[in-house]
Amino acid sequence: MNNRKKRVMKNKVLNIKKKFNLFNDRWSPKVIAEINNYQVKLTKLKGDFPWHSHKDTDEAFIVVEGDLRIDFKDGFVSLSEGEMYVVPKGVEHKPSAVKEVKIMLIEPKGVVNTGDLEPNNLTAKNDIWI
Amino acid sequence: MNNRKKRVMKNKVLNIKKKFNLFNDRWSPKVIAEINNYQVKLTKLKGDFPWHSHKDTDEAFIVVEGDLRIDFKDGFVSLSEGEMYVVPKGVEHKPSAVKEVKIMLIEPKGVVNTGDLEPNNLTAKNDIWI
Repeated sequence: MNNRKKRVMKNKVLNIKKKFNLFNDRWSPKVIAEINNYQVKLTKLKGDFPWHSHKDTDEAFIVVEGDLRIDFKDGFVSLSEGEMYVVPKGVEHKPSAVKEVKIMLIEPKGVVNTGDLEPNNLTAKNDIWI
Repeated sequence: MNNRKKRVMKNKVLNIKKKFNLFNDRWSPKVIAEINNYQVKLTKLKGDFPWHSHKDTDEAFIVVEGDLRIDFKDGFVSLSEGEMYVVPKGVEHKPSAVKEVKIMLIEPKGVVNTGDLEPNNLTAKNDIWI
């Protein structure tokens, strides 16, 4: 089959920055892709999230636009656009952002955003695809 | 502990674009992070890779810089900077790039870049961290 005859499968390509135009709510991760039982999620954050941890899994944060701070009990990291950090399993952390930040998360399917906390008003529904 | 006294953990933040400055070889994925048993890898590609598939796993491609084409037996996708595509488990594909492209891969630890092919001169060593 030559190139001209091949179907262009444009509809399956995800433009990460454009996906952020599809929602405005914060702290509520949206799924854009699954890799086996792992999910890639996008979320917008502003202000402080409560301290929490995920006892069974690491969690990767990638900043797509803006600046993110993640506090730990013994330190903190500041991430700018194009920077990544993996919070290890079981480590208490508190993400925060002075201005709205757009981030991408990589973690297993089923991870609850508020981790080990009792479900609260910031606990987001899972498996919301955009 | 107030902010001023907290340790800044700069050394654990990964700058994805800067990581690409640490290697020049192509088709040889380098690990930058692990999320449990999943790995985030960076690689540079130019030219054509052989047709292959990964029978046990999906494979996510994210273009960090440049343009990537992935051919399938029944179609193809073209990805530019900031675009993502997940090749489903078992699907034959052929990545290629006219000019050098920088890409990020997300997949389980242990995935061999040439998939189901007999190991060949393009088969890269796994678990090379940068």
